[in-house]
Amino acid sequence: MRAAVWYGSKDVRVEGYPTRDLARQEVRVKVKACGICGSDLHEYAAGPIMVPTSPDPLTGRMAPIVLGHEFSGEIVEVGRDVIGWKVGDRVVADPAIACWKCYACKRFNYNQCEMLGCTGLTDDGAFAEYVVVRAYQLYSLPEDVDYLAGALVEPLAVGVHAVKRGKLSQGERVLIVGAGPIGLAVLQAARIAGAHSVFVAEPTPVRNEVAKMLGATAVVDFDDPATFEFLKASTKGVGFDIVFECVGSETALRHALTLTRRGGRVVVVGVYEKDVKVDCNNFSLLEKDVVGCRAYAGDFETVIRFLQDGRMVTKPLITKVVRLDDIVKEGFEELVHHKDRHIKILVVPGES
Amino acid sequence: MRAAVWYGSKDVRVEGYPTRDLARQEVRVKVKACGICGSDLHEYAAGPIMVPTSPDPLTGRMAPIVLGHEFSGEIVEVGRDVIGWKVGDRVVADPAIACWKCYACKRFNYNQCEMLGCTGLTDDGAFAEYVVVRAYQLYSLPEDVDYLAGALVEPLAVGVHAVKRGKLSQGERVLIVGAGPIGLAVLQAARIAGAHSVFVAEPTPVRNEVAKMLGATAVVDFDDPATFEFLKASTKGVGFDIVFECVGSETALRHALTLTRRGGRVVVVGVYEKDVKVDCNNFSLLEKDVVGCRAYAGDFETVIRFLQDGRMVTKPLITKVVRLDDIVKEGFEELVHHKDRHIKILVVPGES
Repeated sequence: MRAAVWYGSKDVRVEGYPTRDLARQEVRVKVKACGICGSDLHEYAAGPIMVPTSPDPLTGRMAPIVLGHEFSGEIVEVGRDVIGWKVGDRVVADPAIACWKCYACKRFNYNQCEMLGCTGLTDDGAFAEYVVVRAYQLYSLPEDVDYLAGALVEPLAVGVHAVKRGKLSQGERVLIVGAGPIGLAVLQAARIAGAHSVFVAEPTPVRNEVAKMLGATAVVDFDDPATFEFLKASTKGVGFDIVFECVGSETALRHALTLTRRGGRVVVVGVYEKDVKVDCNNFSLLEKDVVGCRAYAGDFETVIRFLQDGRMVTKPLITKVVRLDDIVKEGFEELVHHKDRHIKILVVPGES
Repeated sequence: MRAAVWYGSKDVRVEGYPTRDLARQEVRVKVKACGICGSDLHEYAAGPIMVPTSPDPLTGRMAPIVLGHEFSGEIVEVGRDVIGWKVGDRVVADPAIACWKCYACKRFNYNQCEMLGCTGLTDDGAFAEYVVVRAYQLYSLPEDVDYLAGALVEPLAVGVHAVKRGKLSQGERVLIVGAGPIGLAVLQAARIAGAHSVFVAEPTPVRNEVAKMLGATAVVDFDDPATFEFLKASTKGVGFDIVFECVGSETALRHALTLTRRGGRVVVVGVYEKDVKVDCNNFSLLEKDVVGCRAYAGDFETVIRFLQDGRMVTKPLITKVVRLDDIVKEGFEELVHHKDRHIKILVVPGES
């Protein structure tokens, strides 16, 4: 089959790649669409980060490896011990590969697994014609949710998980810092959860527009000196009940903490490149909380329901669809140079 | 009456002080005992910090002011609109003075009140023969809890509040960083809440001993390079379910975050003198939470119950009892120079 194989930083090759035999609990999925995630881009531009350079403890795999973990497809082969799935089933897959025996896994917090792996990072992924996953990773994709939308289930699940972690309660005032695919997923999830208002801080015009389209109460830019006062006034001086920090920078976190009300919470979704300075009296004097948030744990079906009933949408998020053969030039390089033009680029199999 | 009056940093004078007329909702309490808190010491050594230098919005008061907010006593006079309290009642008082109309107060999170004040900091306190409080501050002190123990209800309530904020669940492994009066209060509360084990990190021998006496699983010192490995091994490499940070320093917080398990929480009780550097990937990659914690909100009666049934004790915490006239030399100066010899110094009225 053809696949986009990561060999090293700036070295992803679309080439012939062997299909592997299925283990007893695995299925083979014919890939219909697969999104390019920020982590894929980081692996392309500055990897290896999550891609193993020695055999991964759970998968035994290491580079070269096929990237791609936000995907939908159709089952074409089923391992002999797999129950409940058959050839022809439309599916999406939670890419998390977990040990199922550590402290976190025993509590179904597999996103906190000590050996957490990921299809498309620590095992071959879905920038390929076919991808092999463990049966426990699968979710059924209903007929009325198309494959392109299915490829968005994964990032949308991050939004649902963040809103659940933040224990958003109906009527609360929300601020989202950063409106990339994740920030926009949080926006949709927060509105579904009954937020009173959802403000979004995002400087990029494309993302800014989509945030408005998805129902943001107002979209602001922290580079504008009036923003701070505007946001404070928007909560009558109280501050936001929840702020979702979806950037991963000191400035973003400091703004988030400052704009959260006393006793409110900051949900940290952004990944940080270095340690940041924090005013911890936000905790011990103002009783604010910081809520950690990684990926998702059991949130895929929630997203699929909302895609079915239309409460979640994917079309405004898809800014480009490229063929597998063009993934480097039209996908990775496009995002490296023009990230501000895009939200989500999807890759579909087939030669150009 | 005689009272210890704060005039400025290092300028607390025990002198004659006028008693004020009661407002309709106030009561006058004859002070039986009053503990010296870290905040009192800070006001003495480096104030004003919380002591107002212009009229306080809730009390109208400013320095000079009588310190002391951890107290017990007997009601000697009752304002005309006070219901349910009478002369002779044994009481303790929650020193918090709140606005009762801000966002936090409307949810009974009065410890997050925007205008939060405190008897003994923003109003005259209990390092005096008499103290006046609002009736809503009062709690009944049963006959079987003596007045010295009553003066410890306030710091013990901080421990109960911290354990409640941390949502400690039975069987969890706990680490407390810092075993001053607050850390030791958390220790007692955590054991009552059914912690599996409670490790305490504290370098001071006196506090160290009391922590053991109060049932700490083990007491360690971060200055010992073996401590880190010992603590990790004590949780079988998983990390602690909850770490209570009761120091307020970058080192303490970093240790706390590192030693917390994936998905665990750090309850921040310590107050910080400056911003500190934090590795925020503890949040977005390991899903750890930071839980803010200030003082208490409705926790006094819980402590009183535990003092009655003996599950909380106060004697090991009281390292000295001094007379009001000696508060500066035997209290404040003693703590400035020999803090490591003490846990709690109580002040009782009367001349030396």
